[in-house]
Amino acid sequence: MGNPVLVEVVRGALVESRHSGAVAVMDADGRTVLAIGEVERPIYPRSAIKALQALPLIESGAADRFRLGAEELALACASHGGEPGHIATAERMLAAAGLDGSALKCGAHWPLHQPSAQSLARSGATAGAIHNNCSGKHAGFLCVACAIDADRDGYVQPDHPVQREVKSVLENLAGIAVADSARATDGCSVPTWAMPLSALARAFARFGNGQGLTPARAQAAARLREACAAKPWHVAGTGRFCTEIMKAFGARIFVKTGAEGVFCAALPEQGLGIAIKCDDGAGRAAEVMMAATIARFVTSDADHSALERFVRPALRNWSGIAVGGLRPTGAMA
Amino acid sequence: MGNPVLVEVVRGALVESRHSGAVAVMDADGRTVLAIGEVERPIYPRSAIKALQALPLIESGAADRFRLGAEELALACASHGGEPGHIATAERMLAAAGLDGSALKCGAHWPLHQPSAQSLARSGATAGAIHNNCSGKHAGFLCVACAIDADRDGYVQPDHPVQREVKSVLENLAGIAVADSARATDGCSVPTWAMPLSALARAFARFGNGQGLTPARAQAAARLREACAAKPWHVAGTGRFCTEIMKAFGARIFVKTGAEGVFCAALPEQGLGIAIKCDDGAGRAAEVMMAATIARFVTSDADHSALERFVRPALRNWSGIAVGGLRPTGAMA
Repeated sequence: MGNPVLVEVVRGALVESRHSGAVAVMDADGRTVLAIGEVERPIYPRSAIKALQALPLIESGAADRFRLGAEELALACASHGGEPGHIATAERMLAAAGLDGSALKCGAHWPLHQPSAQSLARSGATAGAIHNNCSGKHAGFLCVACAIDADRDGYVQPDHPVQREVKSVLENLAGIAVADSARATDGCSVPTWAMPLSALARAFARFGNGQGLTPARAQAAARLREACAAKPWHVAGTGRFCTEIMKAFGARIFVKTGAEGVFCAALPEQGLGIAIKCDDGAGRAAEVMMAATIARFVTSDADHSALERFVRPALRNWSGIAVGGLRPTGAMA
Repeated sequence: MGNPVLVEVVRGALVESRHSGAVAVMDADGRTVLAIGEVERPIYPRSAIKALQALPLIESGAADRFRLGAEELALACASHGGEPGHIATAERMLAAAGLDGSALKCGAHWPLHQPSAQSLARSGATAGAIHNNCSGKHAGFLCVACAIDADRDGYVQPDHPVQREVKSVLENLAGIAVADSARATDGCSVPTWAMPLSALARAFARFGNGQGLTPARAQAAARLREACAAKPWHVAGTGRFCTEIMKAFGARIFVKTGAEGVFCAALPEQGLGIAIKCDDGAGRAAEVMMAATIARFVTSDADHSALERFVRPALRNWSGIAVGGLRPTGAMA
């Protein structure tokens, strides 16, 4: 009982804060490659599975019907920063289906990207659902609802055909059945389904190499991975972890953050999936856990150099003075 | 080794995240009233001790010389939200000493209070050091530097007379000597001195009832407590934990948050001081830990009712749907 401390926050000569967590690395057959902490305890995957939630966007034919390109597909997999280019892409997706931002049910929040939030305020405008970090995912759900001629108002409800299909896709990739009792409501109002980290890691191994999936689903996964590798800025935004990692590694690594310290990744070349949960929900620590986990599965000096600033990020204060940093513990090594 | 889980974050039917931590409750004589977890491990008190750092502002005569009232004294103890009234108060403090915002060395950040940040952006202005949540504390340090005719540029340095006096005050209240090796740099560039939670709790017991302090220091502490009780909005801001608790309890509870999950409080009537550290640095959990700790030392139904929304805060998503909440574990009971 109790996961190990995986990340320390150092200030001066002392460890100031500590983050515990669990890490699962699996292959597509369900073989455990690495397990740190309790990898069989169910966790809510939150936004870390947006790419899996986007598979029906392609499988339903909606992506082709509405002529969605790499930017739109990457945004459907995104927790974006609400930068102007993200908003424009979400609006294009909605317009392609004959809709606009008023169709979104994700709720409004100000852009996560602070300069964009300030610029929005400076323009005299206020935040809407289109600025929600999930607006691309929701625009994708709406495209599916239109393509299959389903109700467009209720698309966030668990019994809506879009969410039923999402659940079926998740169960197929994770290789488990998910009970209704495992359902909670996500920050953007769609269902989130609890599952063990091990199952989540296996789902991303399959997402990465298509093994065990129907040819159509494997192709859909490849198309989403290619879109994110080609347009990593659309998956997160300026300076963000997911964007920077995918910019550095291209199609070799797909990585996606979720709320409450969840992180998932696929390493297609190695046939591996990674799922991480920081116990306390801290994104800063989940990023270090993910960078340190990826570092175990790359070999070149260039790859390790590219990861270093994420494995051991420095902390600077408001005056730019170096005050400490984060680092993985021995339990991650 | 390892502190107990003290707060759980619930979503749907599951515990989604967990926060461990330590709690010390001491009296002014150094008797342990309550100890949960490792209370002898040194932690950086960060902004939780701003009221102790403000004692020289009164003891040096600066507060009288510059005619600082309750609002200014409360702001010197504050991590404020950068709301317009906070900024105006900081500017009054600086003007009283013949200075302005350019004298501040705390670094710039946008107001923590989001509507104020948006309004600042809308006005076409940008954030300065005056908007830093520590600007009141720094204005207080500058008032002391002016009153004792010390250098005004170097007031954040550990060897500056202001910071040497702050360290001496901390050692006196905590009843321990603090080694130079325990010093790190805070977010606003002043020194932060690591000390055990137990010593920190004892310092706040003494701050609360003056026991064991010189009459001048005890009077200075009483004047700061009265200022914060009279002007709790100036200690934090609209809707914030410290402000709401002190609005509800008046002079009966002094409470102050710090970065990285630190929280301190004084219960003058009971002669007790409280010091809390959430291991992972999460403010949301430190608030629950503090509310649940206070709840152990109040008896009336009205007091328990006032605390309930802080002991078990609800979580709502971007659409206002109730998705879960935080709660203390049995280890807090």
